Amino acid sequence: MGLPAKQIRPVGPTNLRLAPRRVSVCLLGCGVVGGELLQQITDQAATLAAEHDTEVRLVALANSRLILVADAGLDPARAVDWLDGPLPDGVRRYENTPSARDALLRELAQRPVPVLVDATACEGHTALFQRAVQRGIHVATANKKPLVVVNDRVEALSRAARRHRRAVRFETTVGAGLPIIETIKNLRTTGDTVRRIEGSLSGTLGYLTHQVSVGVPLSVAVRQAVEQGYSEPQPQDDLSGADVGRKGLILARELGLRLELDDVEIEPLVPSDLLEIDDVEAFLAALESVDDRFARRVESAAARGRVLRYLAVVDPSAPTPVRVGPVEVDRDHPAARLRGTEAFGALQTRRYDPCPLVVQGPGAGGAVTAAGLLADLLQIARRG
Amino acid sequence: MGLPAKQIRPVGPTNLRLAPRRVSVCLLGCGVVGGELLQQITDQAATLAAEHDTEVRLVALANSRLILVADAGLDPARAVDWLDGPLPDGVRRYENTPSARDALLRELAQRPVPVLVDATACEGHTALFQRAVQRGIHVATANKKPLVVVNDRVEALSRAARRHRRAVRFETTVGAGLPIIETIKNLRTTGDTVRRIEGSLSGTLGYLTHQVSVGVPLSVAVRQAVEQGYSEPQPQDDLSGADVGRKGLILARELGLRLELDDVEIEPLVPSDLLEIDDVEAFLAALESVDDRFARRVESAAARGRVLRYLAVVDPSAPTPVRVGPVEVDRDHPAARLRGTEAFGALQTRRYDPCPLVVQGPGAGGAVTAAGLLADLLQIARRG
Repeated sequence: MGLPAKQIRPVGPTNLRLAPRRVSVCLLGCGVVGGELLQQITDQAATLAAEHDTEVRLVALANSRLILVADAGLDPARAVDWLDGPLPDGVRRYENTPSARDALLRELAQRPVPVLVDATACEGHTALFQRAVQRGIHVATANKKPLVVVNDRVEALSRAARRHRRAVRFETTVGAGLPIIETIKNLRTTGDTVRRIEGSLSGTLGYLTHQVSVGVPLSVAVRQAVEQGYSEPQPQDDLSGADVGRKGLILARELGLRLELDDVEIEPLVPSDLLEIDDVEAFLAALESVDDRFARRVESAAARGRVLRYLAVVDPSAPTPVRVGPVEVDRDHPAARLRGTEAFGALQTRRYDPCPLVVQGPGAGGAVTAAGLLADLLQIARRG
Repeated sequence: MGLPAKQIRPVGPTNLRLAPRRVSVCLLGCGVVGGELLQQITDQAATLAAEHDTEVRLVALANSRLILVADAGLDPARAVDWLDGPLPDGVRRYENTPSARDALLRELAQRPVPVLVDATACEGHTALFQRAVQRGIHVATANKKPLVVVNDRVEALSRAARRHRRAVRFETTVGAGLPIIETIKNLRTTGDTVRRIEGSLSGTLGYLTHQVSVGVPLSVAVRQAVEQGYSEPQPQDDLSGADVGRKGLILARELGLRLELDDVEIEPLVPSDLLEIDDVEAFLAALESVDDRFARRVESAAARGRVLRYLAVVDPSAPTPVRVGPVEVDRDHPAARLRGTEAFGALQTRRYDPCPLVVQGPGAGGAVTAAGLLADLLQIARRG
């Protein structure tokens, strides 16, 4: 017995959309991550067109001083050179002023599936994101800072994004290319409850705690991290734990916790007074004074079968829901096994209990972060 | 210097789409996974509406015998009862025949964002999926079988899905709710190259190899697995490795390898002749005959600091690109640490090298599989 024929209405060609999907990108920042993203957009253009009917078109590029715009799109392989050099036909260059940024948003909003991509480390972009989504522009950010300002402003951004049906994607702010944020979103929208997140979220601090655990003096390990580019040029920024604190706050807010950065309890890896030394060489020299104390701490932990790691813990039911700092873990703890700049996030949930859902792997670096941003862009391209 | 005013065209309300996003679902199968999905759709309806402006509307439900359809949608909390009991007004019931399924697809295609959800374990659904996407219907499947038929047919399905811009999502076919397939897709679309995938992809075989490694005789462990519902009622199905082989093939095809199921090298956990015993009790009794041999194998591995696990390995450059079977791993191998029915997948790629990207956690069971299907549905809702 089939369904009655009168209910059968064949589907016409209106269900088919055969034009290529295009995202129109304005990229802010062309440092390590932004530069790598431009490279990946260049390298992937043919594959994205041939296999995914998708075009990522760079329509604007900005650094802290200048904005480039081209109606027909900028060549991602060459645009960085145009910021300072001679301009080809069809490319316009402006000073990066507040009014130019506003005009840029108005112009970007006219393009197919416009996306503002933030690959900077700038403060103050929350308002820019808000204006973008209000104009119908999606946002993909690797920059954590716009997401850790006061809660009211971030919630206003979320509300605006929802009202205007725009995406604000920020997968790369925690764990770079590792699928942590999206996994949390999926768990929550499908009705799971995240009870606890534990993670080693800093490549630098992961590297340092691993090095000291195999006997390298802390000051030597920090020097290596600076030389090998694992840490910020100012290693104090990493060792303070401030960056991990931001990631912890982003995760906590993703769980619906209405917290501020001040609510995050941060214990730096090294004594706070050392962190106040601005000069890098003086800081590294001062660090030698705590090498012995640090080594004894690591040895004492090892004698008890434990390993020092730098973890972020988000526990909505705890008096201090977000804590960041050095922690001794058992040898069979997931964090004990991390090598190099590997990161991990363990999500303990109502369904993933007692064993958590764990994502682990290299969680820092230009290539994997840019790939995460590009994945965010392609996700936006699919939703249109 | 702002952009010239003539380029400024304010965005009108056409950029705003404020109507709720609806997916119209036809669910095939209401066993453990399908039943749990109906429960989650029921439980999450209010949250999805309030927080995500999304409605998952069940417009049809089928088991192997019958199809239910309702123009105004079926109550997901009660629809299963209507398959056999009295029908409320507005709900139609048909025999599940090929012509009824075709009529169902035609009708489903008229609904907003139609999705065919396969929560069965049926053979033969590849053609159904093909007809669905040709009619403009998205597909979300937890059923592996339609994806492991001959390559030509699966590629034809992919081509049709692409041509009609429909999604065929199958995240739950490998690792249930763990984000393995989507992660591979993201790596590849952003230009990474997956060089090797290694995974423990069977909750049952993970459980069994863990139990024997702590001294439980194999036959006892299998009996426990059956009693606790970890394995299929016919444990031979799990122990043959055939299901892991299907998962290996799905992963290999995701890497672009044009392989058939026959190309997958499968070594069962127990001797093949035992697997030919159909009767479960007779099989379990026969299994006792290999308990000692198995225990010696495990002890001998332990003496060499190694642990027996059942792994799938996909290596595009190997003579046999997909191999599935019992393997001895080092104690610090990710698989050695798995407990209970935990699964894991390690993706070694050009960028994730030498440390792989690892996803780990409970990888089987109705709740996490249904949640993965619901996440697939919500992903489709976002893209529209």
